[in-house]
Amino acid sequence: MVAPVTLIIADASLETIPKSIVGHKSVVRHAQRIGKKPSEMLLDRSYHHSAMVSGRLADAWKRGRPDIVHFALAEAFSTPLYLRNKLDVCLYTINNKLILTSSDLRIPKSYFRFEGLMMKLFKDGSIRSELDNKLLFELLNDVSFGYLLKNIIQSHKSIGFSSLGVASTAQEIVSKYVNPSMENRCAIIIGGFPKGHFSENVLKYLDILYSIGELPLEAHVVVARVLYECEKLLLFEQ
Amino acid sequence: MVAPVTLIIADASLETIPKSIVGHKSVVRHAQRIGKKPSEMLLDRSYHHSAMVSGRLADAWKRGRPDIVHFALAEAFSTPLYLRNKLDVCLYTINNKLILTSSDLRIPKSYFRFEGLMMKLFKDGSIRSELDNKLLFELLNDVSFGYLLKNIIQSHKSIGFSSLGVASTAQEIVSKYVNPSMENRCAIIIGGFPKGHFSENVLKYLDILYSIGELPLEAHVVVARVLYECEKLLLFEQ
Repeated sequence: MVAPVTLIIADASLETIPKSIVGHKSVVRHAQRIGKKPSEMLLDRSYHHSAMVSGRLADAWKRGRPDIVHFALAEAFSTPLYLRNKLDVCLYTINNKLILTSSDLRIPKSYFRFEGLMMKLFKDGSIRSELDNKLLFELLNDVSFGYLLKNIIQSHKSIGFSSLGVASTAQEIVSKYVNPSMENRCAIIIGGFPKGHFSENVLKYLDILYSIGELPLEAHVVVARVLYECEKLLLFEQ
Repeated sequence: MVAPVTLIIADASLETIPKSIVGHKSVVRHAQRIGKKPSEMLLDRSYHHSAMVSGRLADAWKRGRPDIVHFALAEAFSTPLYLRNKLDVCLYTINNKLILTSSDLRIPKSYFRFEGLMMKLFKDGSIRSELDNKLLFELLNDVSFGYLLKNIIQSHKSIGFSSLGVASTAQEIVSKYVNPSMENRCAIIIGGFPKGHFSENVLKYLDILYSIGELPLEAHVVVARVLYECEKLLLFEQ
């Protein structure tokens, strides 16, 4: 971690097909069509809705939305804040897997390519640059959200965004907590799932929860707004 | 058009496979795999790069990026500005086709579903709601960009965003030109292509061109920032 701000996409709806539905006929058919093993594919409601329903997956309404994670990540990686090394980004999935990302990363806008990348990450546990072998993505199991905040990010404050939070604006929140000092690092936690709220696994480690809209906002919109305000503070005002 | 602000994604990199490469073996193979006619598929560099290169498509570097258009549209349709009917959205493609969209529209985050929707639009010329037959998308040929601005949108000012423009900030530009009056409607024009600049077909109708970043920004980032500033002005301050 190298930056004064870390974005965590939490409860990220990104996983491979769970064991319990790996043999469902729609899953097997989809795997055959794209030439992959069923267990290596990403769970995706666009393709696996019927398997998710008939397999009675727990918390199914929160799962199978890699497209939401893709949008949120692409939003973050496209900001000058990230491109100027003022932002670290990581994912904490609904299955409590941690995905760390390097600086200077571009992720593909094409969903087809993003999907391929994530399948490779879940299979191999890491992705390295073909050019210089630099570690680009790393997947870690069994890291608690609290450990991530305290020991990996070493954040001073953890600020969650949720429609259940205290009403405020991105501008006010950022001006209150974000600053260029590496001593007072700030973790910004935004949910990477379609509906509902943070899991207890995440929620119990947050210092404060804010809401920045009258309407519920999609993850990528919150990412765009909060990072833009961080950028105004950390880049424009220097 | 019902709103004080219209967003136009211009020179949008969205089209079906051009006739000149419709018989290319990689295109035919891809069409077979997804069970579509080659001529009905969207041109997509992720799949058709070799056909685009060997077919020597004109302006190939600007074409075949429906993913960029998808991100920019999803960004706009997710904003409270749009959800509160303060924003109209349309696309003007690199082949000078105009796509009008209705209010109250949600487009799928899943690229697979978005692709299906756009293929249907190019094939049928329009998409209506299955629920109440309301016109959701309409594709028009042979409408000049000037006619769009003057006669369809009836905008008072047309403001383009480009790295070639005058340096400013989204906040300054919006506070200068955007206001709630329907008499002084403003068109915001953002490029929906991966590299390069607006075509002459678009450029000649713009009143002014602004740049809002030291680094070149991707379309969806510009959309997010400009609409967020519009929202602060048109929603928060009322």
